[in-house]
Amino acid sequence: MLTITGVAGLPEIVTGDDLAALIIEHGDVADGDIVVVTSKIVSKAEGRAIELADVEPSEFARRWSEQWEKDARVVEIVLRESKRVVRQIGPVLITETHHGFVCANAGVDQSSSGAHDRVVVLPTDPDASARRLRDGFGAAGIDAAVIISDTFGRPWREGQTDIAIGIAGITPMVSYIGQHDPHGHEFRVQEVCVVDELAGAAELVKGNTSRVPVGVIRGFAWTADDTATMAPVLRDSSRDLFR
Amino acid sequence: MLTITGVAGLPEIVTGDDLAALIIEHGDVADGDIVVVTSKIVSKAEGRAIELADVEPSEFARRWSEQWEKDARVVEIVLRESKRVVRQIGPVLITETHHGFVCANAGVDQSSSGAHDRVVVLPTDPDASARRLRDGFGAAGIDAAVIISDTFGRPWREGQTDIAIGIAGITPMVSYIGQHDPHGHEFRVQEVCVVDELAGAAELVKGNTSRVPVGVIRGFAWTADDTATMAPVLRDSSRDLFR
Repeated sequence: MLTITGVAGLPEIVTGDDLAALIIEHGDVADGDIVVVTSKIVSKAEGRAIELADVEPSEFARRWSEQWEKDARVVEIVLRESKRVVRQIGPVLITETHHGFVCANAGVDQSSSGAHDRVVVLPTDPDASARRLRDGFGAAGIDAAVIISDTFGRPWREGQTDIAIGIAGITPMVSYIGQHDPHGHEFRVQEVCVVDELAGAAELVKGNTSRVPVGVIRGFAWTADDTATMAPVLRDSSRDLFR
Repeated sequence: MLTITGVAGLPEIVTGDDLAALIIEHGDVADGDIVVVTSKIVSKAEGRAIELADVEPSEFARRWSEQWEKDARVVEIVLRESKRVVRQIGPVLITETHHGFVCANAGVDQSSSGAHDRVVVLPTDPDASARRLRDGFGAAGIDAAVIISDTFGRPWREGQTDIAIGIAGITPMVSYIGQHDPHGHEFRVQEVCVVDELAGAAELVKGNTSRVPVGVIRGFAWTADDTATMAPVLRDSSRDLFR
């Protein structure tokens, strides 16, 4: 059996907060758990909020923003957080972030930024963020894997789901490659991206408006790997039929 | 707290089996639970296995299969299960099924079909399949929502995840539209497709090779809706930037 428990009661996170310590204080984290942390509080702890007053939009950002009644400073930040624009159709701006995530507005979040005149951007290196959290749990004597999650849309389907953007300690995929069924057929399923399923599962206890930014998953037999990163999950654009 | 429990010990499913009764017999299903059922056993119970010997491939199927060393009869079935080909690049065949799902090989599964010379295709109407299962639980006095799940790939990311292909009794989305944070900003997240997250969460206890084709999720406060279908999840191609 697998259990998922939300961690509530965390204070409003500010730059420099020790998230691992706060999660241990307010939640129940034990050896073998997977701690799923909403990227927004990681960004806040890492000072990844940007004051809009400090942003000078480019001419490209300004013209497009006027056309679609957007805040040009926010669009400028989206472009800065991106290495390329994947789709820019109508008011929709889907980009590939510097990390390699394809998502709307490069994950830039104007809501819940803690102030009206700033936005929160994704952590610079979410795997490193996850690693620091895992090390923080380790320092308290707890061997827990960490997943940093965010809420992304997807092609073909309406609605968003939470997926992993940074990991530490856990292999992202479970592979069935080379395995066969009793009749000798290779499995149709080749590799399951369990860290995305774990991130989505944790969203079910976190929700998006409630102050439950952390979910603790217990009872999943993860494959420990302290070199694991999100790299194997990010499809290279040369292999991608939809970018 | 949310718990997810696998249902093991089901017999090999054959056409006509009463899946709801078998799940109740082998698992623990109670009022308020969400029962996630792997589509493959639903297909088998509904007689959706196709004997390859009965299939006459079209010339299109035959020529493409020769080029990529595929079984032309399986390719023929994939095309019959599809309303259009979305991508056909190298040996990859991604189609839109008659239901509106975009996936590799129309979900046709040659493994675990129970025989070497047949394949299992997706249920004809997965919402109706879910409805029959929900009614079956209801007949036993249990008010449980049902999700039929399958394992699909996705653009941009390696690995597959389980998502919902049919539902009964549960609203597929949780909407945040029109809600604002304390600073008056609309939430970046608009609608969360919880049935996909629930399907992925159940995969974590089911796995793909083990004989655990059902997961029971307890403790999720779902929105009951006996008219709910997958329709709101399937993005219309006119709104889709990646089809």
